[in-house]
Amino acid sequence: MAVADGIDLGKYCRELGERARAASVELARAGGAMKIAWLRRSAGLLRANQKALAEANARDLAAAPTFGLTDAQIDRLQLSPKVIESMAVGLEEVAALAEPIGEVIESTIRPNGLDISKIRVPLGVVFFIYESRPNVTADAAAICVKSGNAVILRGGKEALHSNQAIVELLHQAAAETGLPADAVQLVNTTDREAVGHLLALNELIDVAIPRGGESLIRRVAAEAKMPVIKHFHGNCHVYVDRAADLEMAERITVNAKCHRLGVCNAAESLVVHRDVAPKFLPKVAAALIAQGIELRGDGRTRSLVPQSKSATDEDFATEYLGPIISIKVVDSLAEAIEHINHFGSHHTDAIVTSDLNTARQFAAAVDSAAVLVNASTRFNDGFEFGLGAEIGISTDKFHARGPCGIKELTSYKYVVYGDGQIRQ
Amino acid sequence: MAVADGIDLGKYCRELGERARAASVELARAGGAMKIAWLRRSAGLLRANQKALAEANARDLAAAPTFGLTDAQIDRLQLSPKVIESMAVGLEEVAALAEPIGEVIESTIRPNGLDISKIRVPLGVVFFIYESRPNVTADAAAICVKSGNAVILRGGKEALHSNQAIVELLHQAAAETGLPADAVQLVNTTDREAVGHLLALNELIDVAIPRGGESLIRRVAAEAKMPVIKHFHGNCHVYVDRAADLEMAERITVNAKCHRLGVCNAAESLVVHRDVAPKFLPKVAAALIAQGIELRGDGRTRSLVPQSKSATDEDFATEYLGPIISIKVVDSLAEAIEHINHFGSHHTDAIVTSDLNTARQFAAAVDSAAVLVNASTRFNDGFEFGLGAEIGISTDKFHARGPCGIKELTSYKYVVYGDGQIRQ
Repeated sequence: MAVADGIDLGKYCRELGERARAASVELARAGGAMKIAWLRRSAGLLRANQKALAEANARDLAAAPTFGLTDAQIDRLQLSPKVIESMAVGLEEVAALAEPIGEVIESTIRPNGLDISKIRVPLGVVFFIYESRPNVTADAAAICVKSGNAVILRGGKEALHSNQAIVELLHQAAAETGLPADAVQLVNTTDREAVGHLLALNELIDVAIPRGGESLIRRVAAEAKMPVIKHFHGNCHVYVDRAADLEMAERITVNAKCHRLGVCNAAESLVVHRDVAPKFLPKVAAALIAQGIELRGDGRTRSLVPQSKSATDEDFATEYLGPIISIKVVDSLAEAIEHINHFGSHHTDAIVTSDLNTARQFAAAVDSAAVLVNASTRFNDGFEFGLGAEIGISTDKFHARGPCGIKELTSYKYVVYGDGQIRQ
Repeated sequence: MAVADGIDLGKYCRELGERARAASVELARAGGAMKIAWLRRSAGLLRANQKALAEANARDLAAAPTFGLTDAQIDRLQLSPKVIESMAVGLEEVAALAEPIGEVIESTIRPNGLDISKIRVPLGVVFFIYESRPNVTADAAAICVKSGNAVILRGGKEALHSNQAIVELLHQAAAETGLPADAVQLVNTTDREAVGHLLALNELIDVAIPRGGESLIRRVAAEAKMPVIKHFHGNCHVYVDRAADLEMAERITVNAKCHRLGVCNAAESLVVHRDVAPKFLPKVAAALIAQGIELRGDGRTRSLVPQSKSATDEDFATEYLGPIISIKVVDSLAEAIEHINHFGSHHTDAIVTSDLNTARQFAAAVDSAAVLVNASTRFNDGFEFGLGAEIGISTDKFHARGPCGIKELTSYKYVVYGDGQIRQ
């Protein structure tokens, strides 16, 4: 199904956009029942076609070395029976979410009798650009369609055959349940220029969502003529206050750093109040080292933890996404807040404290999408926050911030009922 | 206070952005009381300094002919005692609005005990670009500061002295009430390039809001590296259904068209079901003609209303902002919806009908920021919708749609309280 050689790429991309736009109009009027039927049927077809999926996946896996993928990347590329089952369960979970479209978000009756409701509607067309994991294909399609949007999916070239096989099943489910086929479209070319063509179609596409490495996100943000929901890096902090329960602080630090190393809500930096540093740092250092973590601390840290290497300002600004943590000792809550707002990425930051005023000050002053008090940074996640599903974690403030679930892919309209009112 | 010749414009603009950013951090932490005190004091100073304002305004009025302003534009430039009083009242009304910052928008307690709140926070820094009316200066500053944002104001060159005089009073009020002076800054140069410099500062400015003619909005949308809240044109419709109360339909049509000609929520087109056209069109035509409105209709309209000129597709797509209305007769509700979604601008559209199903279908299918049933299009307005104040009416779907009040200038953060939770 790849685009034939010699075809006009710009024309192909415009047609993708026009088909998506037309499908989005149909989809916005489709009832929830059709979307639920499609999601459930898609789950069933994924389970029933494990063999076809494995075959398509095998072609991608065979080609993986030619793309120079690492072992970890090859691992993420695999459509194992377990991954397929989790894709199917994901679709069923999205099916079970409450219908978002048509919700009355707010309403008021004005003194003149006008009955004004703010009603949730889809955005329209989503252009979703992601990297190697093919299971994201089903997740993203599900979230977009549940929120009433048509989606154009652009997966990684390493996963093209797997993605095509998955989308073919989603189309089969659409044909069986009446969902517009073009509600979910895959960009069937690995040509990088296709992304540029699509990012110019602001009259057909309502939002672009890149998910992947920083260079992908920067490229999309720079080129897109439509709004972009960006997912930049997470340089996340755990601040251990003078009034912290130190056992809790150690548990949270180790979990935030070590639970999964390569994710955006993993802690990359530990900030410790000087009053508890002598007691806390040697203990937490031993626990982190036992997990294979390299420590990079400031002068005061290194005097308490001889195993620590020296941290530079660049360390404090770095999202390691690996087994390294930077450590800083501060004199005050104010210094901790200042350090986090300066070096952090406004993504996810946690404090461990038993002091009410300190917790409230930290929560108010740290300018991050999520601020956690006495809990691990790893909880900043759509599922953990109860959104039901997630298409990413926005580092923007505009439109959507933090975990993006189905509601974050919606807009609203005002519907006003009167009985003949005119402006005086 | 104009920028001195020879100064580096890029440097000047960057400093404006940096000062605004610093003020926004202070402002985000400032309590509501300080903002209220500043708004009230500003209102008092405007009333107490009518003479100084009139003198500054006189300089702009004297220069107006050199800018080639029309009489209507010169009228809008005037800071009469009445305009000054309404500016002062506007500030007091914004002061009286409920504090938006810190509001818990949603909250949930997760099964694991995490207590998750979505809390309203400011966007940060707003860059507001507007045209000739100087009273907008005080309105925009009030809305931005009330919502916790610092604002950089770029008014029309025709109003520079008036704007400087107003901002000077706002600064005096800031000095007296402790509000950061840089919470409100005016771009003190009429150099058009300043706008370009500021639109490139996406790391310092969170949103750009142009208000004015279409060319201004297109320029800002094309150049801005930060998100833009756009206020494009309103090609608004009144659809008179077969089940309409025809007296109500006439009242609403005349009000929607004639109440104010040059505004974005004025009706520009009338769509009439064929079943009521013979009875309705001659009557409404007479009423519109009596108000000095020119009619441009399709063939069926002209056969019923001989005074009507002929309408082209271009007429149906035009926002006249003047004493002209286009008229179309349709065979069905579906055709009306199709016509409005095709030719309209997704701004404001109204239906007159007594049929419940028709009203519900129209409200669901017309893809506009506001859909009104049995009420004039003129009600799509922040004050009329109860938002308390308005910085414009967004024609975007992303972030804010329809009237933008103080809440539309905010974002949110997640604040999570736990008692030691870690991810399993």
